[in-house]
Amino acid sequence: MELLQELQKKQEMIENALSDYVPATENEQGTIYRAMRYSLLAGGKRLRPVIMLLACELCGGRAEDALPFACALEMIHTYSLIHDDLPAMDNDDLRRGKPTNHIQFGEAMAILAGDGLLNKAFEITADSKTVPAEVAIRAISVLANASGTEGMIGGQVIDIENEEKSLTMNQLQYLHSLKTGAIIRAAGVVGAIVAGADAEKVKALDDYCLNLGIAFQIRDDILDVVGTEQDLGKTIGSDAQNQKTTYLTLCSLEEAESLVGAFTEKAIRALDSFGEKKEILISLARYLLDRKN
Amino acid sequence: MELLQELQKKQEMIENALSDYVPATENEQGTIYRAMRYSLLAGGKRLRPVIMLLACELCGGRAEDALPFACALEMIHTYSLIHDDLPAMDNDDLRRGKPTNHIQFGEAMAILAGDGLLNKAFEITADSKTVPAEVAIRAISVLANASGTEGMIGGQVIDIENEEKSLTMNQLQYLHSLKTGAIIRAAGVVGAIVAGADAEKVKALDDYCLNLGIAFQIRDDILDVVGTEQDLGKTIGSDAQNQKTTYLTLCSLEEAESLVGAFTEKAIRALDSFGEKKEILISLARYLLDRKN
Repeated sequence: MELLQELQKKQEMIENALSDYVPATENEQGTIYRAMRYSLLAGGKRLRPVIMLLACELCGGRAEDALPFACALEMIHTYSLIHDDLPAMDNDDLRRGKPTNHIQFGEAMAILAGDGLLNKAFEITADSKTVPAEVAIRAISVLANASGTEGMIGGQVIDIENEEKSLTMNQLQYLHSLKTGAIIRAAGVVGAIVAGADAEKVKALDDYCLNLGIAFQIRDDILDVVGTEQDLGKTIGSDAQNQKTTYLTLCSLEEAESLVGAFTEKAIRALDSFGEKKEILISLARYLLDRKN
Repeated sequence: MELLQELQKKQEMIENALSDYVPATENEQGTIYRAMRYSLLAGGKRLRPVIMLLACELCGGRAEDALPFACALEMIHTYSLIHDDLPAMDNDDLRRGKPTNHIQFGEAMAILAGDGLLNKAFEITADSKTVPAEVAIRAISVLANASGTEGMIGGQVIDIENEEKSLTMNQLQYLHSLKTGAIIRAAGVVGAIVAGADAEKVKALDDYCLNLGIAFQIRDDILDVVGTEQDLGKTIGSDAQNQKTTYLTLCSLEEAESLVGAFTEKAIRALDSFGEKKEILISLARYLLDRKN
Protein backbone atom coordinates (compact mmCIF):
# COMPACT_ATOMS: atom_id res chain seq x y z
CA MET A 1 0.00 0.00 0.00
CA GLU A 2 2.88 2.36 0.73
CA LEU A 3 3.99 2.04 -2.88
CA LEU A 4 0.55 2.88 -4.22
CA GLN A 5 0.28 5.92 -1.94
CA GLU A 6 3.71 7.13 -2.96
CA LEU A 7 2.95 6.57 -6.64
CA GLN A 8 -0.32 8.44 -6.28
CA LYS A 9 1.41 11.38 -4.62
CA LYS A 10 3.95 11.62 -7.40
CA GLN A 11 1.30 11.16 -10.06
CA GLU A 12 -0.69 14.05 -8.59
CA MET A 13 2.37 16.30 -8.61
CA ILE A 14 2.85 15.43 -12.27
CA GLU A 15 -0.82 15.83 -13.25
CA ASN A 16 -0.98 19.27 -11.67
CA ALA A 17 2.25 20.42 -13.24
CA LEU A 18 1.29 19.11 -16.70
CA SER A 19 -2.02 20.95 -16.50
CA ASP A 20 -0.23 24.15 -15.48
CA TYR A 21 2.34 23.86 -18.25
CA VAL A 22 -0.35 23.44 -20.92
CA PRO A 23 -3.22 25.60 -19.69
CA ALA A 24 -6.64 25.77 -21.33
CA THR A 25 -5.83 28.92 -23.30
CA GLU A 26 -8.62 30.82 -24.97
CA ASN A 27 -6.62 32.75 -27.54
CA GLU A 28 -6.77 32.52 -31.35
CA GLN A 29 -4.83 29.26 -31.29
CA GLY A 30 -6.85 27.81 -28.39
CA THR A 31 -7.64 24.62 -30.31
CA ILE A 32 -4.10 23.33 -30.08
CA TYR A 33 -4.09 23.74 -26.30
CA ARG A 34 -7.29 21.69 -26.13
CA ALA A 35 -5.77 19.07 -28.42
CA MET A 36 -2.54 18.92 -26.40
CA ARG A 37 -4.42 18.70 -23.10
CA TYR A 38 -6.74 16.04 -24.51
CA SER A 39 -3.89 13.58 -24.89
CA LEU A 40 -1.56 14.88 -22.19
CA LEU A 41 -4.17 14.74 -19.45
CA ALA A 42 -5.78 11.48 -20.55
CA GLY A 43 -4.46 9.62 -17.56
CA GLY A 44 -1.91 6.90 -18.00
CA LYS A 45 0.50 5.57 -15.43
CA ARG A 46 2.96 8.46 -15.70
CA LEU A 47 5.59 5.77 -15.33
CA ARG A 48 8.46 7.73 -16.88
CA PRO A 49 8.05 10.95 -14.89
CA VAL A 50 7.34 9.01 -11.68
CA ILE A 51 10.59 7.08 -12.13
CA MET A 52 12.44 10.35 -12.71
CA LEU A 53 11.12 11.91 -9.50
CA LEU A 54 11.90 8.75 -7.51
CA ALA A 55 15.39 8.48 -9.04
CA CYS A 56 16.04 12.10 -8.09
CA GLU A 57 14.96 11.50 -4.51
CA LEU A 58 16.95 8.26 -4.31
CA CYS A 59 20.06 10.30 -5.15
CA GLY A 60 19.26 12.86 -2.48
CA GLY A 61 17.62 15.46 -4.70
CA ARG A 62 14.22 17.12 -4.45
CA ALA A 63 11.36 15.85 -6.61
CA GLU A 64 10.28 19.48 -7.24
CA ASP A 65 13.58 20.21 -8.95
CA ALA A 66 13.12 17.30 -11.34
CA LEU A 67 9.47 18.11 -12.03
CA PRO A 68 9.94 20.23 -15.19
CA PHE A 69 12.17 17.55 -16.69
CA ALA A 70 9.72 14.82 -15.66
CA CYS A 71 6.87 16.71 -17.33
CA ALA A 72 9.01 17.23 -20.43
CA LEU A 73 9.58 13.48 -20.64
CA GLU A 74 5.84 12.82 -20.37
CA MET A 75 5.17 15.42 -23.09
CA ILE A 76 7.68 13.68 -25.34
CA HIS A 77 6.07 10.31 -24.61
CA THR A 78 2.61 11.74 -25.32
CA TYR A 79 3.58 13.46 -28.57
CA SER A 80 5.08 10.18 -29.79
CA LEU A 81 1.79 8.40 -29.11
CA ILE A 82 -0.21 11.07 -30.98
CA HIS A 83 2.03 10.84 -34.04
CA ASP A 84 2.25 7.03 -33.80
CA ASP A 85 -1.55 6.76 -33.87
CA LEU A 86 -1.88 8.82 -37.10
CA PRO A 87 -3.38 7.15 -40.18
CA ALA A 88 -0.01 7.28 -41.96
CA MET A 89 1.62 5.49 -39.01
CA ASP A 90 -0.18 2.85 -36.88
CA ASN A 91 -3.67 4.17 -37.77
CA ASP A 92 -5.14 3.58 -34.30
CA ASP A 93 -8.59 4.90 -33.35
CA LEU A 94 -8.50 4.21 -29.63
CA ARG A 95 -5.97 5.22 -26.95
CA ARG A 96 -6.45 5.10 -23.19
CA GLY A 97 -10.13 4.33 -23.69
CA LYS A 98 -10.76 7.44 -25.79
CA PRO A 99 -10.72 8.28 -29.50
CA THR A 100 -7.16 9.06 -30.58
CA ASN A 101 -6.14 12.68 -31.06
CA HIS A 102 -6.64 12.77 -34.83
CA ILE A 103 -10.08 11.16 -34.53
CA GLN A 104 -11.06 13.87 -32.05
CA PHE A 105 -9.34 16.92 -33.58
CA GLY A 106 -8.52 15.93 -37.16
CA GLU A 107 -5.19 14.97 -38.63
CA ALA A 108 -3.76 18.45 -39.11
CA MET A 109 -4.38 19.43 -35.50
CA ALA A 110 -3.05 16.10 -34.22
CA ILE A 111 0.20 16.59 -36.12
CA LEU A 112 0.49 20.12 -34.68
CA ALA A 113 -0.49 19.00 -31.16
CA GLY A 114 2.33 16.44 -31.31
CA ASP A 115 4.76 19.07 -32.58
CA GLY A 116 3.52 21.42 -29.87
CA LEU A 117 4.16 18.92 -27.09
CA LEU A 118 7.65 18.04 -28.32
CA ASN A 119 8.43 21.73 -28.56
CA LYS A 120 6.88 22.48 -25.16
CA ALA A 121 9.13 19.87 -23.54
CA PHE A 122 12.12 22.02 -24.42
CA GLU A 123 10.41 25.31 -23.57
CA ILE A 124 9.69 24.20 -20.02
CA THR A 125 13.09 22.66 -19.39
CA ALA A 126 14.95 25.69 -20.76
CA ASP A 127 12.72 27.98 -18.67
CA SER A 128 12.70 25.80 -15.54
CA LYS A 129 15.43 27.38 -13.38
CA THR A 130 15.08 24.67 -10.69
CA VAL A 131 18.73 23.69 -11.11
CA PRO A 132 21.91 25.52 -12.18
CA ALA A 133 22.21 26.12 -15.94
CA GLU A 134 25.05 23.56 -16.30
CA VAL A 135 22.84 20.86 -14.80
CA ALA A 136 19.80 21.87 -16.83
CA ILE A 137 21.74 21.81 -20.09
CA ARG A 138 23.07 18.33 -19.30
CA ALA A 139 19.56 17.11 -18.50
CA ILE A 140 18.16 18.65 -21.70
CA SER A 141 20.91 16.98 -23.69
CA VAL A 142 20.04 13.56 -22.23
CA LEU A 143 16.33 14.09 -22.90
CA ALA A 144 16.85 15.34 -26.45
CA ASN A 145 19.23 12.56 -27.40
CA ALA A 146 16.96 9.91 -25.90
CA SER A 147 13.97 11.14 -27.89
CA GLY A 148 15.86 11.68 -31.16
CA THR A 149 16.93 9.69 -34.18
CA GLU A 150 19.40 7.64 -32.14
CA GLY A 151 16.66 7.10 -29.57
CA MET A 152 12.89 6.99 -29.67
CA ILE A 153 12.37 8.43 -33.17
CA GLY A 154 14.99 6.05 -34.54
CA GLY A 155 13.05 3.19 -32.98
CA GLN A 156 9.84 4.35 -34.62
CA VAL A 157 11.59 4.39 -37.98
CA ILE A 158 12.81 0.81 -37.57
CA ASP A 159 9.37 -0.23 -36.36
CA ILE A 160 7.60 1.23 -39.39
CA GLU A 161 10.11 -0.06 -41.89
CA ASN A 162 9.85 -3.60 -40.56
CA GLU A 163 6.12 -3.89 -40.03
CA GLU A 164 5.65 -6.78 -42.39
CA LYS A 165 9.07 -8.31 -41.94
CA SER A 166 10.29 -10.84 -39.40
CA LEU A 167 12.89 -9.58 -36.97
CA THR A 168 15.46 -11.66 -35.12
CA MET A 169 15.63 -11.42 -31.33
CA ASN A 170 18.67 -9.13 -31.66
CA GLN A 171 16.87 -6.83 -34.06
CA LEU A 172 13.78 -6.77 -31.86
CA GLN A 173 15.86 -5.88 -28.82
CA TYR A 174 17.65 -3.11 -30.73
CA LEU A 175 14.30 -1.74 -31.89
CA HIS A 176 12.92 -1.65 -28.36
CA SER A 177 16.12 -0.27 -26.88
CA LEU A 178 15.52 2.78 -29.05
CA LYS A 179 11.75 3.04 -29.35
CA THR A 180 10.79 2.59 -25.71
CA GLY A 181 14.05 1.94 -23.85
CA ALA A 182 15.82 5.24 -24.52
CA ILE A 183 13.33 7.52 -22.83
CA ILE A 184 12.78 5.18 -19.88
CA ARG A 185 16.54 5.25 -19.35
CA ALA A 186 16.48 9.03 -19.63
CA ALA A 187 14.01 9.07 -16.72
CA GLY A 188 16.53 7.47 -14.38
CA VAL A 189 19.55 9.29 -15.74
CA VAL A 190 18.00 12.77 -15.69
CA GLY A 191 16.58 12.17 -12.20
CA ALA A 192 20.08 11.36 -10.98
CA ILE A 193 21.67 14.28 -12.86
CA VAL A 194 19.19 16.77 -11.39
CA ALA A 195 20.09 15.46 -7.92
CA GLY A 196 23.76 16.06 -8.65
CA ALA A 197 24.58 12.35 -8.39
CA ASP A 198 28.02 11.00 -9.21
CA ALA A 199 28.72 8.95 -12.35
CA GLU A 200 28.35 5.63 -10.51
CA LYS A 201 24.85 6.46 -9.30
CA VAL A 202 23.84 7.79 -12.71
CA LYS A 203 25.03 4.49 -14.17
CA ALA A 204 23.13 2.43 -11.58
CA LEU A 205 19.86 4.23 -12.35
CA ASP A 206 20.54 3.89 -16.06
CA ASP A 207 20.92 0.10 -15.55
CA TYR A 208 17.78 -0.09 -13.44
CA CYS A 209 15.76 1.67 -16.15
CA LEU A 210 17.38 -0.26 -18.99
CA ASN A 211 16.28 -3.58 -17.49
CA LEU A 212 12.94 -2.29 -16.28
CA GLY A 213 12.28 -0.99 -19.80
CA ILE A 214 12.92 -4.40 -21.34
CA ALA A 215 10.68 -6.12 -18.79
CA PHE A 216 8.03 -3.47 -19.43
CA GLN A 217 8.16 -4.00 -23.18
CA ILE A 218 7.89 -7.78 -22.97
CA ARG A 219 4.91 -7.36 -20.62
CA ASP A 220 3.38 -5.00 -23.23
CA ASP A 221 3.75 -7.64 -25.91
CA ILE A 222 2.16 -10.22 -23.61
CA LEU A 223 -0.76 -7.91 -22.79
CA ASP A 224 -1.37 -7.22 -26.48
CA VAL A 225 -2.16 -10.93 -26.76
CA VAL A 226 -3.69 -11.93 -23.42
CA GLY A 227 -5.00 -8.55 -22.14
CA THR A 228 -8.49 -7.13 -22.55
CA GLU A 229 -9.40 -3.90 -24.30
CA GLN A 230 -11.21 -2.82 -21.16
CA ASP A 231 -8.12 -3.20 -18.98
CA LEU A 232 -5.81 -1.66 -21.57
CA GLY A 233 -8.03 1.11 -22.94
CA LYS A 234 -6.64 0.48 -26.41
CA THR A 235 -7.17 -1.86 -29.32
CA ILE A 236 -5.62 -5.26 -28.60
CA GLY A 237 -4.20 -7.63 -31.15
CA SER A 238 -2.87 -4.67 -33.16
CA ASP A 239 0.67 -6.07 -33.21
CA ALA A 240 -0.52 -9.26 -34.89
CA GLN A 241 -2.77 -7.28 -37.22
CA ASN A 242 0.15 -5.07 -38.28
CA GLN A 243 2.28 -8.22 -38.63
CA LYS A 244 4.78 -6.87 -36.14
CA THR A 245 7.42 -9.10 -34.65
CA THR A 246 7.02 -9.20 -30.87
CA TYR A 247 8.54 -11.24 -28.07
CA LEU A 248 5.58 -13.59 -28.47
CA THR A 249 6.35 -14.32 -32.10
CA LEU A 250 9.90 -15.23 -31.07
CA CYS A 251 9.22 -17.18 -27.89
CA SER A 252 6.43 -18.91 -25.98
CA LEU A 253 4.20 -17.19 -23.45
CA GLU A 254 5.97 -19.05 -20.66
CA GLU A 255 9.40 -18.02 -21.91
CA ALA A 256 8.23 -14.43 -22.23
CA GLU A 257 6.85 -14.45 -18.67
CA SER A 258 10.15 -15.84 -17.45
CA LEU A 259 12.06 -13.09 -19.31
CA VAL A 260 9.92 -10.39 -17.66
CA GLY A 261 10.84 -11.85 -14.27
CA ALA A 262 14.54 -12.11 -15.09
CA PHE A 263 14.85 -8.52 -16.36
CA THR A 264 12.87 -7.26 -13.37
CA GLU A 265 15.34 -8.95 -11.02
CA LYS A 266 18.24 -7.50 -12.99
CA ALA A 267 16.70 -4.04 -12.61
CA ILE A 268 16.40 -4.54 -8.87
CA ARG A 269 19.99 -5.73 -8.53
CA ALA A 270 21.20 -2.57 -10.28
CA LEU A 271 20.11 -0.66 -7.17
CA ASP A 272 22.30 -2.72 -4.80
CA SER A 273 24.56 0.18 -3.83
CA PHE A 274 21.69 2.41 -2.69
CA GLY A 275 20.28 2.59 0.84
CA GLU A 276 16.80 1.83 2.08
CA LYS A 277 15.17 4.56 -0.04
CA LYS A 278 15.59 2.18 -2.95
CA GLU A 279 12.68 0.07 -1.65
CA ILE A 280 10.17 2.21 -3.51
CA LEU A 281 11.86 1.61 -6.87
CA ILE A 282 12.09 -2.10 -6.07
CA SER A 283 8.39 -2.19 -5.27
CA LEU A 284 7.68 -0.32 -8.48
CA ALA A 285 9.58 -2.91 -10.52
CA ARG A 286 7.68 -5.78 -8.85
CA TYR A 287 4.39 -3.91 -9.32
CA LEU A 288 5.04 -3.49 -13.05
CA LEU A 289 5.95 -7.17 -13.29
CA ASP A 290 2.34 -8.08 -12.49
CA ARG A 291 0.53 -5.25 -14.24
CA LYS A 292 -2.65 -5.81 -16.26
CA ASN A 293 -2.44 -2.56 -18.27
CA MET B 1 28.83 42.36 -54.50
CA GLU B 2 30.28 42.52 -51.00
CA LEU B 3 26.88 41.52 -49.61
CA LEU B 4 26.57 38.55 -51.92
CA GLN B 5 30.07 37.35 -51.04
CA GLU B 6 29.40 37.73 -47.34
CA LEU B 7 26.05 35.94 -47.64
CA GLN B 8 27.68 33.15 -49.58
CA LYS B 9 30.40 32.74 -46.96
CA LYS B 10 27.82 32.48 -44.20
CA GLN B 11 25.62 30.17 -46.25
CA GLU B 12 28.59 27.84 -46.78
CA MET B 13 29.33 27.77 -43.06
CA ILE B 14 25.70 26.84 -42.46
CA GLU B 15 25.50 24.23 -45.24
CA ASN B 16 28.61 22.48 -43.96
CA ALA B 17 27.44 22.51 -40.36
CA LEU B 18 23.94 21.27 -41.25
CA SER B 19 25.43 18.40 -43.21
CA ASP B 20 27.72 17.51 -40.29
CA TYR B 21 24.87 17.65 -37.77
CA VAL B 22 22.69 15.30 -39.83
CA PRO B 23 25.17 12.93 -41.44
CA ALA B 24 24.27 10.28 -44.00
CA THR B 25 24.09 7.49 -41.44
CA GLU B 26 23.96 3.91 -42.64
CA ASN B 27 22.48 2.27 -39.54
CA GLU B 28 19.13 0.50 -39.15
CA GLN B 29 17.29 3.82 -39.10
CA GLY B 30 19.31 5.26 -42.02
CA THR B 31 16.15 6.20 -43.94
CA ILE B 32 15.27 9.00 -41.57
CA TYR B 33 18.69 10.57 -41.98
CA ARG B 34 18.22 10.50 -45.75
CA ALA B 35 14.74 12.03 -45.37
CA MET B 36 16.01 14.73 -43.00
CA ARG B 37 18.95 15.57 -45.28
CA TYR B 38 16.70 15.61 -48.34
CA SER B 39 14.79 18.61 -47.03
CA LEU B 40 17.47 20.17 -44.84
CA LEU B 41 20.07 20.30 -47.61
CA ALA B 42 17.68 21.27 -50.41
CA GLY B 43 19.15 24.74 -50.67
CA GLY B 44 17.09 27.74 -49.76
CA LYS B 45 18.34 31.15 -48.77
CA ARG B 46 19.27 30.19 -45.19
CA LEU B 47 17.90 33.61 -44.33
CA ARG B 48 17.22 32.89 -40.65
CA PRO B 49 20.58 31.36 -39.76
CA VAL B 50 22.44 33.96 -41.85
CA ILE B 51 20.71 36.75 -39.94
CA MET B 52 21.64 35.06 -36.66
CA LEU B 53 25.32 34.86 -37.57
CA LEU B 54 25.34 38.48 -38.78
CA ALA B 55 23.48 39.67 -35.66
CA CYS B 56 26.01 37.88 -33.49
CA GLU B 57 28.92 39.53 -35.33
CA LEU B 58 27.23 42.93 -35.24
CA CYS B 59 27.15 42.64 -31.43
CA GLY B 60 30.83 41.72 -31.30
CA GLY B 61 30.42 37.94 -31.06
CA ARG B 62 31.87 35.17 -33.19
CA ALA B 63 29.72 33.58 -35.90
CA GLU B 64 31.14 30.15 -34.95
CA ASP B 65 29.65 30.46 -31.48
CA ALA B 66 26.19 31.12 -32.90
CA LEU B 67 26.47 28.37 -35.52
CA PRO B 68 24.76 25.55 -33.55
CA PHE B 69 21.85 27.85 -32.71
CA ALA B 70 21.66 29.07 -36.31
CA CYS B 71 21.54 25.48 -37.56
CA ALA B 72 18.88 24.67 -34.95
CA LEU B 73 16.74 27.51 -36.27
CA GLU B 74 17.10 26.25 -39.83
CA MET B 75 16.16 22.73 -38.67
CA ILE B 76 13.05 24.13 -37.00
CA HIS B 77 12.18 26.07 -40.15
CA THR B 78 12.71 22.96 -42.29
CA TYR B 79 10.67 20.64 -40.07
CA SER B 80 7.79 23.14 -40.20
CA LEU B 81 7.89 23.10 -44.01
CA ILE B 82 7.87 19.27 -44.09
CA HIS B 83 4.86 19.06 -41.78
CA ASP B 84 3.13 22.01 -43.50
CA ASP B 85 3.38 20.25 -46.87
CA LEU B 86 1.70 17.04 -45.61
CA PRO B 87 -1.60 15.97 -47.20
CA ALA B 88 -3.48 16.72 -43.95
CA MET B 89 -2.02 20.24 -43.92
CA ASP B 90 -1.31 22.26 -47.12
CA ASN B 91 -0.99 19.14 -49.31
CA ASP B 92 1.86 20.51 -51.42
CA ASP B 93 3.76 18.32 -53.89
CA LEU B 94 6.58 20.68 -54.77
CA ARG B 95 9.07 22.51 -52.57
CA ARG B 96 12.29 24.20 -53.65
CA GLY B 97 11.90 22.65 -57.09
CA LYS B 98 11.76 19.08 -55.78
CA PRO B 99 9.01 16.69 -54.70
CA THR B 100 8.03 17.41 -51.10
CA ASN B 101 9.33 15.10 -48.36
CA HIS B 102 6.20 12.94 -48.13
CA ILE B 103 6.07 12.51 -51.92
CA GLN B 104 9.66 11.30 -51.85
CA PHE B 105 9.68 9.23 -48.63
CA GLY B 106 6.01 8.59 -47.81
CA GLU B 107 3.88 10.26 -45.18
CA ALA B 108 5.04 8.26 -42.17
CA MET B 109 8.71 8.99 -42.82
CA ALA B 110 7.96 12.67 -43.53
CA ILE B 111 6.21 13.02 -40.18
CA LEU B 112 9.16 11.36 -38.45
CA ALA B 113 11.73 13.38 -40.43
CA GLY B 114 9.98 16.54 -39.23
CA ASP B 115 9.93 15.27 -35.66
CA GLY B 116 13.57 14.30 -36.02
CA LEU B 117 14.62 17.77 -37.16
CA LEU B 118 12.70 19.54 -34.39
CA ASN B 119 14.25 17.19 -31.87
CA LYS B 120 17.73 17.54 -33.41
CA ALA B 121 17.52 21.32 -33.02
CA PHE B 122 17.50 20.86 -29.27
CA GLU B 123 20.09 18.08 -29.27
CA ILE B 124 22.65 20.24 -31.03
CA THR B 125 22.01 23.36 -28.97
CA ALA B 126 22.14 21.46 -25.67
CA ASP B 127 25.34 19.74 -26.80
CA SER B 128 26.93 22.80 -28.41
CA LYS B 129 29.24 24.11 -25.66
CA THR B 130 30.21 27.18 -27.73
CA VAL B 131 28.92 29.52 -25.02
CA PRO B 132 28.54 29.29 -21.21
CA ALA B 133 25.58 27.18 -20.03
CA GLU B 134 23.65 30.26 -18.80
CA VAL B 135 23.86 31.80 -22.26
CA ALA B 136 23.01 28.55 -24.03
CA ILE B 137 19.94 27.96 -21.89
CA ARG B 138 18.70 31.50 -22.56
CA ALA B 139 19.20 31.00 -26.28
CA ILE B 140 17.41 27.63 -26.20
CA SER B 141 14.52 29.25 -24.34
CA VAL B 142 14.15 31.95 -27.00
CA LEU B 143 14.31 29.37 -29.80
CA ALA B 144 11.83 27.01 -28.15
CA ASN B 145 9.33 29.72 -27.31
CA ALA B 146 9.56 31.21 -30.82
CA SER B 147 8.84 27.86 -32.43
CA GLY B 148 6.09 26.83 -30.00
CA THR B 149 2.37 27.29 -29.56
CA GLU B 150 2.78 31.01 -28.79
CA GLY B 151 5.03 31.27 -31.84
CA MET B 152 5.37 29.39 -35.09
CA ILE B 153 3.15 26.40 -34.25
CA GLY B 154 0.46 28.75 -32.94
CA GLY B 155 0.59 30.57 -36.27
CA GLN B 156 0.17 27.33 -38.17
CA VAL B 157 -2.90 26.53 -36.09
CA ILE B 158 -4.50 29.89 -36.88
CA ASP B 159 -3.56 29.49 -40.53
CA ILE B 160 -5.21 26.08 -40.81
CA GLU B 161 -8.31 27.05 -38.88
CA ASN B 162 -8.90 30.09 -41.07
CA GLU B 163 -8.15 28.66 -44.49
CA GLU B 164 -11.57 29.32 -45.91
CA LYS B 165 -12.37 32.37 -43.82
CA SER B 166 -11.62 36.01 -44.45
CA LEU B 167 -9.21 37.63 -42.02
CA THR B 168 -8.99 41.30 -41.17
CA MET B 169 -5.64 43.06 -41.53
CA ASN B 170 -5.15 42.82 -37.76
CA GLN B 171 -5.83 39.08 -37.75
CA LEU B 172 -3.54 38.56 -40.74
CA GLN B 173 -0.74 40.46 -39.03
CA TYR B 174 -1.20 38.47 -35.82
CA LEU B 175 -1.10 35.23 -37.82
CA HIS B 176 2.14 36.20 -39.54
CA SER B 177 3.70 37.57 -36.37
CA LEU B 178 3.45 34.01 -35.02
CA LYS B 179 3.80 31.80 -38.07
CA THR B 180 6.80 33.42 -39.71
CA GLY B 181 7.66 36.42 -37.54
CA ALA B 182 8.54 34.64 -34.31
CA ILE B 183 11.43 32.58 -35.60
CA ILE B 184 12.85 35.41 -37.71
CA ARG B 185 12.89 37.53 -34.55
CA ALA B 186 14.54 34.66 -32.71
CA ALA B 187 17.35 34.82 -35.28
CA GLY B 188 18.25 38.36 -34.29
CA VAL B 189 17.64 37.91 -30.59
CA VAL B 190 19.63 34.69 -30.23
CA GLY B 191 22.47 36.10 -32.32
CA ALA B 192 22.68 39.05 -29.93
CA ILE B 193 22.37 36.84 -26.82
CA VAL B 194 25.16 34.54 -27.97
CA ALA B 195 27.37 37.63 -28.42
CA GLY B 196 26.59 38.69 -24.86
CA ALA B 197 24.85 41.87 -26.03
CA ASP B 198 23.04 44.18 -23.59
CA ALA B 199 19.24 44.46 -23.48
CA GLU B 200 19.19 47.53 -25.73
CA LYS B 201 21.08 45.77 -28.51
CA VAL B 202 18.96 42.65 -28.17
CA LYS B 203 15.89 44.86 -28.54
CA ALA B 204 17.32 46.65 -31.59
CA LEU B 205 17.97 43.35 -33.37
CA ASP B 206 14.53 42.13 -32.36
CA ASP B 207 13.02 45.25 -33.97
CA TYR B 208 15.11 44.83 -37.09
CA CYS B 209 13.92 41.24 -37.50
CA LEU B 210 10.33 42.04 -36.60
CA ASN B 211 10.06 44.57 -39.42
CA LEU B 212 12.17 42.57 -41.84
CA GLY B 213 9.88 39.59 -41.18
CA ILE B 214 6.77 41.57 -42.05
CA ALA B 215 8.36 42.94 -45.24
CA PHE B 216 9.47 39.40 -46.09
CA GLN B 217 5.97 38.00 -45.63
CA ILE B 218 4.30 40.67 -47.76
CA ARG B 219 6.89 40.03 -50.48
CA ASP B 220 6.02 36.29 -50.20
CA ASP B 221 2.35 37.05 -50.74
CA ILE B 222 3.21 39.22 -53.74
CA LEU B 223 5.42 36.52 -55.25
CA ASP B 224 2.69 33.90 -54.82
CA VAL B 225 0.67 36.02 -57.26
CA VAL B 226 3.22 37.60 -59.60
CA GLY B 227 6.17 35.16 -59.28
CA THR B 228 6.95 32.21 -61.51
CA GLU B 229 7.17 28.57 -60.43
CA GLN B 230 10.64 28.43 -61.96
CA ASP B 231 11.93 31.34 -59.87
CA LEU B 232 10.22 30.12 -56.71
CA GLY B 233 10.69 26.36 -57.02
CA LYS B 234 7.25 25.81 -55.56
CA THR B 235 3.65 25.79 -56.67
CA ILE B 236 2.37 29.34 -57.15
CA GLY B 237 -1.19 30.49 -56.65
CA SER B 238 -1.57 28.06 -53.73
CA ASP B 239 -2.75 30.82 -51.38
CA ALA B 240 -5.66 31.68 -53.67
CA GLN B 241 -6.38 27.99 -54.26
CA ASN B 242 -6.54 27.36 -50.50
CA GLN B 243 -8.68 30.51 -50.12
CA LYS B 244 -6.16 32.02 -47.76
CA THR B 245 -6.32 35.67 -46.85
CA THR B 246 -3.07 37.38 -47.88
CA TYR B 247 -1.89 40.97 -48.04
CA LEU B 248 -3.04 40.95 -51.66
CA THR B 249 -6.62 40.08 -50.76
CA LEU B 250 -6.63 43.04 -48.35
CA CYS B 251 -4.80 45.65 -50.40
CA SER B 252 -3.71 46.40 -53.98
CA LEU B 253 -0.38 45.27 -55.44
CA GLU B 254 0.86 48.86 -55.31
CA GLU B 255 -0.12 49.24 -51.65
CA ALA B 256 1.55 45.94 -50.83
CA GLU B 257 4.76 46.99 -52.62
CA SER B 258 4.71 50.23 -50.69
CA LEU B 259 4.27 48.34 -47.39
CA VAL B 260 7.28 46.15 -48.17
CA GLY B 261 9.32 49.31 -48.66
CA ALA B 262 8.05 50.94 -45.49
CA PHE B 263 8.75 47.93 -43.25
CA THR B 264 12.18 47.51 -44.83
CA GLU B 265 13.03 51.10 -43.94
CA LYS B 266 11.73 50.57 -40.40
CA ALA B 267 13.97 47.52 -40.09
CA ILE B 268 16.96 49.54 -41.21
CA ARG B 269 16.23 52.38 -38.78
CA ALA B 270 16.16 49.88 -35.91
CA LEU B 271 19.91 49.49 -36.43
CA ASP B 272 20.64 53.22 -35.96
CA SER B 273 22.64 52.77 -32.76
CA PHE B 274 25.10 50.30 -34.31
CA GLY B 275 28.38 51.20 -36.01
CA GLU B 276 29.47 50.56 -39.58
CA LYS B 277 29.23 46.77 -39.27
CA LYS B 278 25.48 47.24 -39.61
CA GLU B 279 25.92 47.91 -43.35
CA ILE B 280 25.69 44.22 -44.13
CA LEU B 281 22.30 43.85 -42.42
CA ILE B 282 21.09 47.00 -44.17
CA SER B 283 22.19 45.59 -47.52
CA LEU B 284 20.46 42.34 -46.67
CA ALA B 285 17.18 44.14 -45.97
CA ARG B 286 17.41 46.03 -49.29
CA TYR B 287 18.34 42.83 -51.11
CA LEU B 288 15.28 41.03 -49.74
CA LEU B 289 13.11 44.00 -50.72
CA ASP B 290 13.77 43.24 -54.37
CA ARG B 291 13.92 39.46 -54.27
CA LYS B 292 12.30 37.28 -56.92
CA ASN B 293 12.20 34.11 -54.82
